[in-house]
Amino acid sequence: MATTSPGYSITVRAEAPPSVGATADLAAVVNAAGGSLTALDVVESTPTSIVVDVSCDTIDAVHADQVTRSIAQITGVHVRKVSDRTFLLHLGGKIEIAPKVPLKHRDDLSRAYTPGVARVCTAIVENPADARRLTIKRNTVAVVTDGSAVLGLGNIGPAAAMPVMEGKAALFKQFGNVDAWPIALDTQNTDLIVEIVRAIAPGFGGINLEDIAAPRCFEIERRLRDLLDIPVFHDDQHGTAIVVLGALTNALRVVDKTPQDARVVVSGVGAAGHAIIRLLHHQGFTDIVGCDRNGAIRPDNPQLDGYRRWIADHTNPRTAQGPLAEMIVGADVFIGVSAPNLLTGDDIAKMADQAIVFALANPTPEVDPFAAGAHAAIVATGRSDYPNQINNVLAFPGFFRGMLDSGAHEITDECLIAAASAIADCVHPDQLNANFIVLSVFDPAVAPAVAAAVRKVTS
Amino acid sequence: MATTSPGYSITVRAEAPPSVGATADLAAVVNAAGGSLTALDVVESTPTSIVVDVSCDTIDAVHADQVTRSIAQITGVHVRKVSDRTFLLHLGGKIEIAPKVPLKHRDDLSRAYTPGVARVCTAIVENPADARRLTIKRNTVAVVTDGSAVLGLGNIGPAAAMPVMEGKAALFKQFGNVDAWPIALDTQNTDLIVEIVRAIAPGFGGINLEDIAAPRCFEIERRLRDLLDIPVFHDDQHGTAIVVLGALTNALRVVDKTPQDARVVVSGVGAAGHAIIRLLHHQGFTDIVGCDRNGAIRPDNPQLDGYRRWIADHTNPRTAQGPLAEMIVGADVFIGVSAPNLLTGDDIAKMADQAIVFALANPTPEVDPFAAGAHAAIVATGRSDYPNQINNVLAFPGFFRGMLDSGAHEITDECLIAAASAIADCVHPDQLNANFIVLSVFDPAVAPAVAAAVRKVTS
Repeated sequence: MATTSPGYSITVRAEAPPSVGATADLAAVVNAAGGSLTALDVVESTPTSIVVDVSCDTIDAVHADQVTRSIAQITGVHVRKVSDRTFLLHLGGKIEIAPKVPLKHRDDLSRAYTPGVARVCTAIVENPADARRLTIKRNTVAVVTDGSAVLGLGNIGPAAAMPVMEGKAALFKQFGNVDAWPIALDTQNTDLIVEIVRAIAPGFGGINLEDIAAPRCFEIERRLRDLLDIPVFHDDQHGTAIVVLGALTNALRVVDKTPQDARVVVSGVGAAGHAIIRLLHHQGFTDIVGCDRNGAIRPDNPQLDGYRRWIADHTNPRTAQGPLAEMIVGADVFIGVSAPNLLTGDDIAKMADQAIVFALANPTPEVDPFAAGAHAAIVATGRSDYPNQINNVLAFPGFFRGMLDSGAHEITDECLIAAASAIADCVHPDQLNANFIVLSVFDPAVAPAVAAAVRKVTS
Repeated sequence: MATTSPGYSITVRAEAPPSVGATADLAAVVNAAGGSLTALDVVESTPTSIVVDVSCDTIDAVHADQVTRSIAQITGVHVRKVSDRTFLLHLGGKIEIAPKVPLKHRDDLSRAYTPGVARVCTAIVENPADARRLTIKRNTVAVVTDGSAVLGLGNIGPAAAMPVMEGKAALFKQFGNVDAWPIALDTQNTDLIVEIVRAIAPGFGGINLEDIAAPRCFEIERRLRDLLDIPVFHDDQHGTAIVVLGALTNALRVVDKTPQDARVVVSGVGAAGHAIIRLLHHQGFTDIVGCDRNGAIRPDNPQLDGYRRWIADHTNPRTAQGPLAEMIVGADVFIGVSAPNLLTGDDIAKMADQAIVFALANPTPEVDPFAAGAHAAIVATGRSDYPNQINNVLAFPGFFRGMLDSGAHEITDECLIAAASAIADCVHPDQLNANFIVLSVFDPAVAPAVAAAVRKVTS
């Protein structure tokens, strides 16, 4: 399971004697310590020493320290400093603003600012719909978080959530040409969050809620959709559900099963699990069992909150009962959006023939993908270092591109399904196999296809 | 007074006969109608006709229509369409977002987004001060408005205020390399505005309040300064006061007067007037009379609101009484931040010798600058088509650049005075004369000088 990742890439600046074998020693030590060497650059050289930048990927922060120590222990080698390439990349943040208009000359200022701008303001007063034509509104999305459920890190607050929100904004631009701005809120009060997002909405063409804990996220989304005339999307819910449905559509094609006859178990009924279950239900899946840490959610349990109640009322037709490991016995599909290492390969072996396993907990999946692969027909994770990476980047940039282009504001299940179908159909039948149920997140075909599908269904 | 402006620049596409004199006729008609011809482009030509794009600056929207009609009345000429260059420039808005990091390869994603970003988040949890190092916070300013006092247009609301806020953001980047994002609020409730700005602050390194009506703006600014650990600036107050003090410093040098012996009259005691009076008072001006539409504000008037009360208690040492036109009799300095056409050249003639007139109401000053210039030694306006343009663009980009660089959050009178002195000192003694008391807003020397002065006083 433990593989090195460029997310844990370091550059160790080491001073070494100018011997013939010095760089070979450095390379050997990195490899012996389990690091993946990516570059050796000699940056200084004198008659008595060389200075080498040793760049390598490591497994995690602890492993990075181990690799560094191994280098320092080579006789005659002195480590001058260690740079963490992830931190270097983040210095100063990841997005900036660029003027789209020239401001070099007085005439530019007269048009872009006073006095010319006053006429543009007046035009919007006279015809409020012109805001979408004459301001950034039409292409702009607020990425709103309260920092309460950030990645797998939990409730880390707004300031620490910013690197994720900035990353999201950068991805919006890169893949969807959407201008997204992070708004990290120093409050976790539902009423206040709703009021704030309502109030800041005039300058935005869409709201992307992000990393807000369940069940608060459901109420915030619902109330904002009632209040606003721009699309309100919660990526942890809707983005995840779109990508899962898209990937599952292709996975079922590979194993030749249908939504109607596939038994599905979903582990995790937070924001993602809830949205996945709703969308699968809408898409015609009939046998879904949702599990939380207490096992299957059953319709005959009276002590459920509102959102679990909906799941109870619309799933588990066989009123199955028991822990997750029992629920997946005989199941065709396992979808995990929950916690690391809940299942073993032996558990997966008890699923139906040609089983499909989506173990999406990040960074550590619900089941070791190699162990699962020994028994399942198809395994997918959220990670980039295994085949079939199920990542929301496949969905949100194109989804918002489509919504902003059409000017629609209501995000219906049909919109989500259209986006999911587009993601599925991006994989040509000739390409489709157990290790290729979705395109790479870097495939430039995905976002335009999703955008076109969303435009079509909303125009 | 009525001069053409590139803010009212149109392009008329006209079809004309292919005669030798056709373009000359077009040019003559534009000039006769009072337009300023900037370009004649033949965009199509056939044996029977030519199509000409006639570009010209006009005085205002009504005049633009007149010019267009004059063109249409030329025999044989047919106007196909009229493009307004100011509106063309605003299509789609004036700012966009740009990723600062590469996102072309899977390794990029691993560092900028998951899994690498999680370590950056964790670092900020462990050391909150790292947010200024590892996120956009350090270089980012929210431009916040409630749309209640936009330019001279008044309470036009948040959506219609956006073109001004976007222009401001573009100027922040262009002149200060500050990343500013517009937040236009759909509320004019003081408590809610304070609560919203407090809540969105984690992702920003500064707050620039903009076009919020007095007296609400004073309370919002004061309360936010108490709540936040980032600088809170209200450009209509502080930006204006900085630029006015900077320009006035040089104007007094030209006429060889001092703050201590100059009698100053300020017309308008809203956000700008209040801040100007406070800063002049702090800078040692002893004889200031503030006027609102009821005339001089006097210390013996018991019926004043809190902000007028401060003015009453700190100005008007001679307890002068009467309308504005009487107050400026014998005054050395007139500063207008109020309304168009309050004074005539005859009024200015009654000021002291070597009078200084800053008639800053936009777009129409308190007194015709030509009429004022017949009597005053120095005349300045907010307009770009007269000498001595007093524009906040001279102040806010450099001011925030300095505050963000030093990491200070308290905006003291000393900061404002340092910035004003820097603006004044940008004009070399050899350059200084009655028509050159401030540099052009496009002079690249101003913002770095202001930033350096602010850094020095806050570091």
